[in-house]
Amino acid sequence: MPFTSRLQPISATAVRVTDSFWGPWLDRVATVTIPTQYALLESTGRLENLRRAGRREEGGYQGYRFNDSDVYKWLEACAFSLIARPSAENRRLMDQAVEIIAKAQREDGYLNTFVQLQHPGMEWRSLSMLHEMYCGGHLIEAAVAHRMATGNDELMTVAIRFADHVMSIFGPDKRKGTCGHEEIELALLKLARATGQAKYADFARWLVEIRGTRPSPYEAELNDPVAYNLSPAGMPLLLKNGTYSGEYLQDHAPIREHETVVGHAVRAMYLYIAATELAHDQNDEALENALLRGWRNLTERRMYITGGIGPSGDNEGFTHDYDLPNHSAYAETCAAIGLALWGHRLNLATGDASFVEAVERALYNGALAGISLSGDRYFYANPLESRGDHQRPEWYGCACCPPNIARLIGQVGALALAETEDALLVNLPIGLEAQTRHGRVRIESRYPWEGQVTIEWLEVTTADPFALRVRIPEWCADCGFEVVGANEAAEYENGYASVERTWTAGDRVKVEFDMTPQWIEAHPAVLDDLGRVALTRGPLVYALESPDGPVPQRFTVDASAEIEESWSSDLGGVVRLATTGTSVLDSFADGLYSEVGTQEISDAQAHLIPYYAWSNRGPSHMLVWLRMM
Amino acid sequence: MPFTSRLQPISATAVRVTDSFWGPWLDRVATVTIPTQYALLESTGRLENLRRAGRREEGGYQGYRFNDSDVYKWLEACAFSLIARPSAENRRLMDQAVEIIAKAQREDGYLNTFVQLQHPGMEWRSLSMLHEMYCGGHLIEAAVAHRMATGNDELMTVAIRFADHVMSIFGPDKRKGTCGHEEIELALLKLARATGQAKYADFARWLVEIRGTRPSPYEAELNDPVAYNLSPAGMPLLLKNGTYSGEYLQDHAPIREHETVVGHAVRAMYLYIAATELAHDQNDEALENALLRGWRNLTERRMYITGGIGPSGDNEGFTHDYDLPNHSAYAETCAAIGLALWGHRLNLATGDASFVEAVERALYNGALAGISLSGDRYFYANPLESRGDHQRPEWYGCACCPPNIARLIGQVGALALAETEDALLVNLPIGLEAQTRHGRVRIESRYPWEGQVTIEWLEVTTADPFALRVRIPEWCADCGFEVVGANEAAEYENGYASVERTWTAGDRVKVEFDMTPQWIEAHPAVLDDLGRVALTRGPLVYALESPDGPVPQRFTVDASAEIEESWSSDLGGVVRLATTGTSVLDSFADGLYSEVGTQEISDAQAHLIPYYAWSNRGPSHMLVWLRMM
Repeated sequence: MPFTSRLQPISATAVRVTDSFWGPWLDRVATVTIPTQYALLESTGRLENLRRAGRREEGGYQGYRFNDSDVYKWLEACAFSLIARPSAENRRLMDQAVEIIAKAQREDGYLNTFVQLQHPGMEWRSLSMLHEMYCGGHLIEAAVAHRMATGNDELMTVAIRFADHVMSIFGPDKRKGTCGHEEIELALLKLARATGQAKYADFARWLVEIRGTRPSPYEAELNDPVAYNLSPAGMPLLLKNGTYSGEYLQDHAPIREHETVVGHAVRAMYLYIAATELAHDQNDEALENALLRGWRNLTERRMYITGGIGPSGDNEGFTHDYDLPNHSAYAETCAAIGLALWGHRLNLATGDASFVEAVERALYNGALAGISLSGDRYFYANPLESRGDHQRPEWYGCACCPPNIARLIGQVGALALAETEDALLVNLPIGLEAQTRHGRVRIESRYPWEGQVTIEWLEVTTADPFALRVRIPEWCADCGFEVVGANEAAEYENGYASVERTWTAGDRVKVEFDMTPQWIEAHPAVLDDLGRVALTRGPLVYALESPDGPVPQRFTVDASAEIEESWSSDLGGVVRLATTGTSVLDSFADGLYSEVGTQEISDAQAHLIPYYAWSNRGPSHMLVWLRMM
Repeated sequence: MPFTSRLQPISATAVRVTDSFWGPWLDRVATVTIPTQYALLESTGRLENLRRAGRREEGGYQGYRFNDSDVYKWLEACAFSLIARPSAENRRLMDQAVEIIAKAQREDGYLNTFVQLQHPGMEWRSLSMLHEMYCGGHLIEAAVAHRMATGNDELMTVAIRFADHVMSIFGPDKRKGTCGHEEIELALLKLARATGQAKYADFARWLVEIRGTRPSPYEAELNDPVAYNLSPAGMPLLLKNGTYSGEYLQDHAPIREHETVVGHAVRAMYLYIAATELAHDQNDEALENALLRGWRNLTERRMYITGGIGPSGDNEGFTHDYDLPNHSAYAETCAAIGLALWGHRLNLATGDASFVEAVERALYNGALAGISLSGDRYFYANPLESRGDHQRPEWYGCACCPPNIARLIGQVGALALAETEDALLVNLPIGLEAQTRHGRVRIESRYPWEGQVTIEWLEVTTADPFALRVRIPEWCADCGFEVVGANEAAEYENGYASVERTWTAGDRVKVEFDMTPQWIEAHPAVLDDLGRVALTRGPLVYALESPDGPVPQRFTVDASAEIEESWSSDLGGVVRLATTGTSVLDSFADGLYSEVGTQEISDAQAHLIPYYAWSNRGPSHMLVWLRMM
């Protein structure tokens, strides 16, 4: 599966999402998420940190050391939101933020308010923990999106000055060092595309390549008391059995030697996104193999059915193969987002639809659960079981996830499509209108609730034949594909149903995905899922939440019984799935333990809802993997 | 259930254990555990800390701040071991230790090498964290056992000087303060009995009574930077949602107002042991009720079937009702020991056999698992499920459990019996010979492997009638009781089968407990055990370990099938229980998730072993609560 595809992404500015599922999400992000998050950036001191830096103050820093990044991520989310849903008020907030950021930047281009306010003189002293390049990476991503949304360079200038400053200090003939939290690598690649300047891509490549080589700059910091004391609580994460391992921040080995996904999950995803783009069209088989090896390890051994990844809260990341506990699952929202973005990038590099499976799984489940239906509460961790102890708060001290899910939703239209000189690819059948290089296309669907999708060319700008390729999801056992009014049969290749022909305005393709609910079981090495099944329908994973049946943990499902589907207008409108089984009643003899047969069991019904929609009705018990009769 | 029983314990010196089960354990403790632990006290610097203090040095302290207590607990274990199994070599080690300890004590009676070496002048500055009275409590317990074993006062003198020093500083008209880790309270009660000096009991009562009153001395320490910095890592444990709660160290409320068992499990047990003894014969209904309330909460809502308590590693203690996760179970060995000792004390206070249920459960399962069959490796945590990741190391940085299990085994004979002026009570049918106030008695049994027990009077020293009471365990559905050669029927009261008569030498009672294996289920509020059963036989809880069948987590048991019992000479000799069911095979389609029915299932047999014996054959998977068909 060489990285030689000519696939290119579609710009967010070229897509207008009209989808019945994602449309309301985009509305909510614009009207609720963006303004409430701005208010929180203000009330939690994140903007004030930047203002103080702008006034060249010292002291008074508030919050975690990487809090600047939340402002930048919010700004990127706001930019994508403005593209999808113009709003004068959100534009005003964004302009304010840009002004505050620009003032905060030091004359030499450096920008990190934690260091500027709290530890002046400590610039780049703790690469492992201070997140200076990480924050800068989000600044760069924000600037790229900001220019896309506004056409102006106000933030781009700041980002370029920061990038140039970093490159004046670090580089092949300068200091060897990368950021403990990957992010700037993929951001620099965006900057290179946005500016046409290869030097940023070259620097990104250098950052990716030196990671994992020895001597490790992070290891040295363990022995530097000054560096150590800038974040003493974090440093033990770099160790394994008392010695430096580097796994936590993917510094355990050079990237071509990576065998499995290790350490902090978000960091790993961000690294591999950049590395995938760097490997594209480079004929770098060793790097391609390492990335495919990592992807297989991730999706075949270390991924929840929801697309959640990184089971452990201890390192916010990976543990070992098949270790996927449900109740204690960390499965950070940001990590699922990272998985989606990596899968998207692998799809672009290879032209293979299989990578989109995980994109879709994360997008509709593990990532989307990160935000409440009201658009203003957030999960950081996304367990697959709850015992009434997990609810979405308004915000976090470490608030990476809230703006991250907002910026992902803002880009959903761009994730749906890809194109080459001779094809349009529909990766996700989201309702939209898009301006492609081949013309204007409209997709209509009630996905993920219904399987019928219509793709219509509103305008075709070329008389040459080109292909329309529609991804056939692996969960889809049966799929219809028809060019309306023609009898061309689709060819199936790389996971796409494809028809190549001369298209004209008004040409329509109808696709139908079989949305029959399916009971899924896990590999028996996943000890937590043994004797259990999860229900899926299309791309959605379902969950039983306590308002909709017995206490989920007490329910045993009859997986052979018929499942009833019904549309329900609550929870923003969902297809519910009614199942039958038995439930253990609350009655019991005195005491904790008794002879088997003491429990009373009765027939029970349970109405499952999509996983992303759980925890929107107060404290509840929830379970994805149900016990099976 | 008033605390008005006239039950008194039997001294360890009055009992000689001949039991086929516990006898070899006592041998192993004497020949392996005691000497290897002494070597570890030496090699880890615990003895050196005391030697340095004896040389009036400063600095050079090694290990955790409470490491002195390990020496004292070892000494107590050594004393009990010497009583049960005399050994010139162990006596030599004990004498050495006593000499080192005596020299380390300061002229004013203070003794704590962490403070003496590391923080001179900081005596009693951090009651919440420094464990000074806790260590002193173990010193006192050691001294009482030491005098019992040797008849000399060498260590008792040290202990009395320490106790008197504490009482010169703290007390009703002096400073208000108790130790963050309870222990000295119960130790002072032992000291009062050993010396006949009521002042120690009075002081113990004061310590128990002031705990939980306000202002709290611990709360003040949160605001004292000096106290805080003596153990900054521990202080957050005192908080709940950012404010002082005191639950961690049972300072949340005065003892009479305690509703549930909270906080650090070992601390709670030690407090309640002392409080139970203090309540005995005091007609203090409020205290009795609080203790009985706590016991019911503990044993009916917060106790593993193994007698393990305290499910969470975060606070080494309690969480909420029915929260009993199996894989992550903390269930510290010391906590199970504390449970056993509290149950024993409640039995003495009430004369009710029901309290011995948990004593027996912990003794034969959750506590005994704390030591390897080789006698020189230890569990700190005792989970009810393992995935190959839990094995007994030789020692711990915090090594409270190893000497604690050694001293419990040393006392097992004393736990078996109790007496009043007109009765002998057999709480545990352990093979032994004992000198009681009514004469010399012999118990013969192959318990817990077989149910037949013979109790014979070798000598009777009174012509007055008195009762022989034998506890009938609650797990025993059917029980035979016969005075050999007589036709006196037993009366059943307070959980005992009892015959009152005139006894003469040679009189024998035969008891037979029904040892049929039983499948047990848990209260349905224990979400982790739903759909699962555990196998018990007599007092033993059984477990499936991977050498004896399929991967336990992949096994589903047929609880209606016959269980085959067989004696097996491995694992020190155990009754194994053969069960049948099915197992999920290792085969699976590619990937993590597939349609239900992909898994291959075959019939399977599994041979369960007693829980205490697991993890003695290398890394393994283990499970107590098996999935049930």
